[in-house]
Amino acid sequence: MTRFTGIIPPLCTPFRDDFTIDVDSLRRHLDVQLAAGIHGVFVLGSSSEVAFLPDRQRRVVIETTVAHVAGRVPVLAGCIDMTTLRVAEHIRVAEEAGADALVVTAPYYTRTHTAEIEQHFRLLRSRTELPIFAYDIPMAVHTKLDRAMILRLAGDGVLSGVKDSSGDEAGFSALLLGRRDRGLTDLAVFTGSELVVDLALRMGADGAVPGLANVDPAGYVSIFDRVRAGDLDGARREQERLLRLFAITSAAPPERMGRGSAGLGAFKAAMKMRGFIDNSVMAPPQLPLNDEELLSIKGTLTEAGLL
Amino acid sequence: MTRFTGIIPPLCTPFRDDFTIDVDSLRRHLDVQLAAGIHGVFVLGSSSEVAFLPDRQRRVVIETTVAHVAGRVPVLAGCIDMTTLRVAEHIRVAEEAGADALVVTAPYYTRTHTAEIEQHFRLLRSRTELPIFAYDIPMAVHTKLDRAMILRLAGDGVLSGVKDSSGDEAGFSALLLGRRDRGLTDLAVFTGSELVVDLALRMGADGAVPGLANVDPAGYVSIFDRVRAGDLDGARREQERLLRLFAITSAAPPERMGRGSAGLGAFKAAMKMRGFIDNSVMAPPQLPLNDEELLSIKGTLTEAGLL
Amino acid sequence: MTRFTGIIPPLCTPFRDDFTIDVDSLRRHLDVQLAAGIHGVFVLGSSSEVAFLPDRQRRVVIETTVAHVAGRVPVLAGCIDMTTLRVAEHIRVAEEAGADALVVTAPYYTRTHTAEIEQHFRLLRSRTELPIFAYDIPMAVHTKLDRAMILRLAGDGVLSGVKDSSGDEAGFSALLLGRRDRGLTDLAVFTGSELVVDLALRMGADGAVPGLANVDPAGYVSIFDRVRAGDLDGARREQERLLRLFAITSAAPPERMGRGSAGLGAFKAAMKMRGFIDNSVMAPPQLPLNDEELLSIKGTLTEAGLL
Amino acid sequence: MTRFTGIIPPLCTPFRDDFTIDVDSLRRHLDVQLAAGIHGVFVLGSSSEVAFLPDRQRRVVIETTVAHVAGRVPVLAGCIDMTTLRVAEHIRVAEEAGADALVVTAPYYTRTHTAEIEQHFRLLRSRTELPIFAYDIPMAVHTKLDRAMILRLAGDGVLSGVKDSSGDEAGFSALLLGRRDRGLTDLAVFTGSELVVDLALRMGADGAVPGLANVDPAGYVSIFDRVRAGDLDGARREQERLLRLFAITSAAPPERMGRGSAGLGAFKAAMKMRGFIDNSVMAPPQLPLNDEELLSIKGTLTEAGLL
Repeated sequence: MTRFTGIIPPLCTPFRDDFTIDVDSLRRHLDVQLAAGIHGVFVLGSSSEVAFLPDRQRRVVIETTVAHVAGRVPVLAGCIDMTTLRVAEHIRVAEEAGADALVVTAPYYTRTHTAEIEQHFRLLRSRTELPIFAYDIPMAVHTKLDRAMILRLAGDGVLSGVKDSSGDEAGFSALLLGRRDRGLTDLAVFTGSELVVDLALRMGADGAVPGLANVDPAGYVSIFDRVRAGDLDGARREQERLLRLFAITSAAPPERMGRGSAGLGAFKAAMKMRGFIDNSVMAPPQLPLNDEELLSIKGTLTEAGLL
Repeated sequence: MTRFTGIIPPLCTPFRDDFTIDVDSLRRHLDVQLAAGIHGVFVLGSSSEVAFLPDRQRRVVIETTVAHVAGRVPVLAGCIDMTTLRVAEHIRVAEEAGADALVVTAPYYTRTHTAEIEQHFRLLRSRTELPIFAYDIPMAVHTKLDRAMILRLAGDGVLSGVKDSSGDEAGFSALLLGRRDRGLTDLAVFTGSELVVDLALRMGADGAVPGLANVDPAGYVSIFDRVRAGDLDGARREQERLLRLFAITSAAPPERMGRGSAGLGAFKAAMKMRGFIDNSVMAPPQLPLNDEELLSIKGTLTEAGLL
Repeated sequence: MTRFTGIIPPLCTPFRDDFTIDVDSLRRHLDVQLAAGIHGVFVLGSSSEVAFLPDRQRRVVIETTVAHVAGRVPVLAGCIDMTTLRVAEHIRVAEEAGADALVVTAPYYTRTHTAEIEQHFRLLRSRTELPIFAYDIPMAVHTKLDRAMILRLAGDGVLSGVKDSSGDEAGFSALLLGRRDRGLTDLAVFTGSELVVDLALRMGADGAVPGLANVDPAGYVSIFDRVRAGDLDGARREQERLLRLFAITSAAPPERMGRGSAGLGAFKAAMKMRGFIDNSVMAPPQLPLNDEELLSIKGTLTEAGLL
Repeated sequence: MTRFTGIIPPLCTPFRDDFTIDVDSLRRHLDVQLAAGIHGVFVLGSSSEVAFLPDRQRRVVIETTVAHVAGRVPVLAGCIDMTTLRVAEHIRVAEEAGADALVVTAPYYTRTHTAEIEQHFRLLRSRTELPIFAYDIPMAVHTKLDRAMILRLAGDGVLSGVKDSSGDEAGFSALLLGRRDRGLTDLAVFTGSELVVDLALRMGADGAVPGLANVDPAGYVSIFDRVRAGDLDGARREQERLLRLFAITSAAPPERMGRGSAGLGAFKAAMKMRGFIDNSVMAPPQLPLNDEELLSIKGTLTEAGLL
């Protein structure tokens, strides 16, 4: 059984112009990430444009990643779909492709309920041997996972981990405390925020899944190492540098496009500028950044010493 | 080119205990609907548990329906998925299966924007010859379709229809007026509400897509016929009867399960009680109604003269 | 005991440049309304900028109105504040000033609950002899009134009426049906929408409280009269004319100002253009409409034959 | 000019059975707080039931507090109302009563806009000499304050401080960074959370306004002192102890009452159990805790060593 810890970037997915997976870029991006010292990779998370990928492209992403990583770090695979039977299909693919763990959200599109979400995780548990992470992302699924339910499912061996992208740091702190008070030492707890990673680690989180690590993996690894070494001031400074870098995600204004396009577009543009990938195209119907926005991103990267 | 009008029920999907499609029940349910005089069927809408159906089950639903209906009424097929490329895959299946029109929501899971939603419909338009209906269902996708965008897309030949399940009757009225003022006579406009069908028809809607028609198709056909015949009082009385019948959807309280399970569970239970289908099981992770709730539904059906 | 029925406009409040009440304009506006045949007036509702008025200005509005109307039609007074004790103070003022009925929302600012909202109305009932209308306006107070609670409170003599500005026409229809089924003939039910008045009356509503009647009271009186006379087509045409007129409320775009300012600013600008009031200034911190927006409103009024 | 720093509890307001202010209890509670070493008090914030207090009771609270504190620590006064002119009235009272600073939210009840919120603060600035804190509390007012606006207003001398109760710790971190990058050394930044105070201080916050300090002021003072002294582990342990104590706010379940009543009811019950105040009654229409809930709170206090 893999033990999960450290910086596990939610990988962006490089495309060719026809929206097939650019596997060369994907491998190069993986090399960049591994060279920076990341401790795992999370494919097919929200940052991967998983919501935009047809099933066969999803399979290419995970197969390419598992093959290229070749066991050096664990590979977590998002199994993102609306309800149990559809998620179960993605789980089967992830298993076949050799993923080390699965990441699953609450049901969405349907109007759900905590009792149903709990049922969802329990049923999926019965269909796979792989560790399951609960993915708490109300921004996407419009439901917040209930803390007592998570702890109950962890106690029953249903959940092996949590990726908390809810932005509720107080709730995250209470989750970590609940884990300790119940002795649930096997439950891995990760923050999905890129903006308070040092604080999450200080609170006892096992690690982070920061989207911005696609652009600067070394920065997040440095935060992790510094907190481990007790250099909290250094970790804070690094986090603040990355908080400034995060400004690239608002280069495109909300009047012009969705916050999804603006954020992922900025990540991909920066990844291309840094040479990690060849093509920053995003899957439809997302809109491309314009020249002015790209120039602003370039400026921010330069200030951050990344170009 | 099919012209769309009248009562087009969003069909519930009968399952066997293993959650495969109960095609015998589906055919029997279609016979019941056709015998009642409905003017079209909408498969793979929200009432079909489309969010719960794996792709191969979706295909069975649409193929079975198209074959069984055999051209007697148009078959609309929901192509419900998160973004453009994924929806495009469902469109291909619906085309192959012989659907007469496609029903498509705004993107979801991702944080979207009107400019991206518009792009979404335009790109899909370029991929199919079939009429596309925009499905306005903020309850599921958490975005309301912009009225000016709908009218613009209709003017450009991108949209052939709208199914408005937003519950915003004032906006619906403005949409109908906008259609008339712009001379968009080819745009079919349907209400997705089951509760104000007579009023929607009075405002100029072409028809309705009422979930409750799964339980009482004749009632909705009667409303349509009466409004056509100028019997507005009779239509109102019939709508009020159906409004009372709708109480079955809250037999299960919100403390116990999601409003999706409660509503669809009630429809399926009533369909079984009325002999339309054999099995009222719902796809996971939805919870089943309990005996007390089923008894309450039976009582309401009896009062309504449907048992 | 006054019986409430018909068109009861929620009066806008004319100000002088120092934001004191322009009582001359208020009286002139009342004369315009009464001459148009309205059946009551509602002062200190949301359209009055009640949220912007200090207590002493609120008192001036209601005293001026009661004195000027002089019993010709009933005067309803909004008692809009966050919780019970604060609302009770406004009730005392409204009683002293001679209002005929009180209009009260759910608690807001605080995170409330149906049991507390019910308690709120019951406590207020014990403090006044005047009829109390429940004001269902989730847009402002972020809570929807529970239908079963309203009917229970009406049955217990706590509520004498409802003004439903929730935009939920299906729920409104169910409320009217619930009233009939329980024999609550004393409960007056009004729609607060200006866009579906004919339909609300058709469903059995006693009347409407349309903000747009500040600009065109005769139009709404005509809808009421036509529905009463069975001329449903005529009523529909009139409602459609007013729906087009309602476009003035979006002359100012959402990028530039709040939807409150845009709507009330348009009403006041149109009232001034039509000579009903002298000054269209709005209370701070609302922003004024600009010349282009005012010109657009003028154009819409001209098209509507109102200038 | 007062410099604001440290632990500034948002005081709960003790009532007599007739809902007048229990000034003896208020003074005793102030003594408890001051003895614990708190660095300021915030009266008429959300925890004070300000939304429930008539104006004359608000005045008693602030006058009693200013007189009793007698300059030992600064007194911040909430001026909580819907819009500019109404807030201005509360400001006048707070000035007369001798408050040291004012705390003001965005407009509410009305549908507002950042341009209007900015106008709101600028207009209020022109009406008082006292420092103004922006109170960011979307839970109550349903709008999040824009970070760029806050920094702009601070740069222009409009705002002297921010109390951030939004729960958005990433945004809070960005605000602190923005303050530093712009050299806005005069802007006091406080977290309104009680659950991540040590982390907020670590990020550079000047202090905290924790509701739970009504129950355990010494705990929060200890966190502040420890962070100052560099004892981050000790601060974390203390914060975790208080996080466990916070469980009292969910003794009453969400099915039974609003989260406001449940939280403030728990604070007041605990304050009474600890002898700080005589009466734990809450203003209407809030519901009282029942015996079982009180017993649970007593148990939590005992475990925490506070009884």
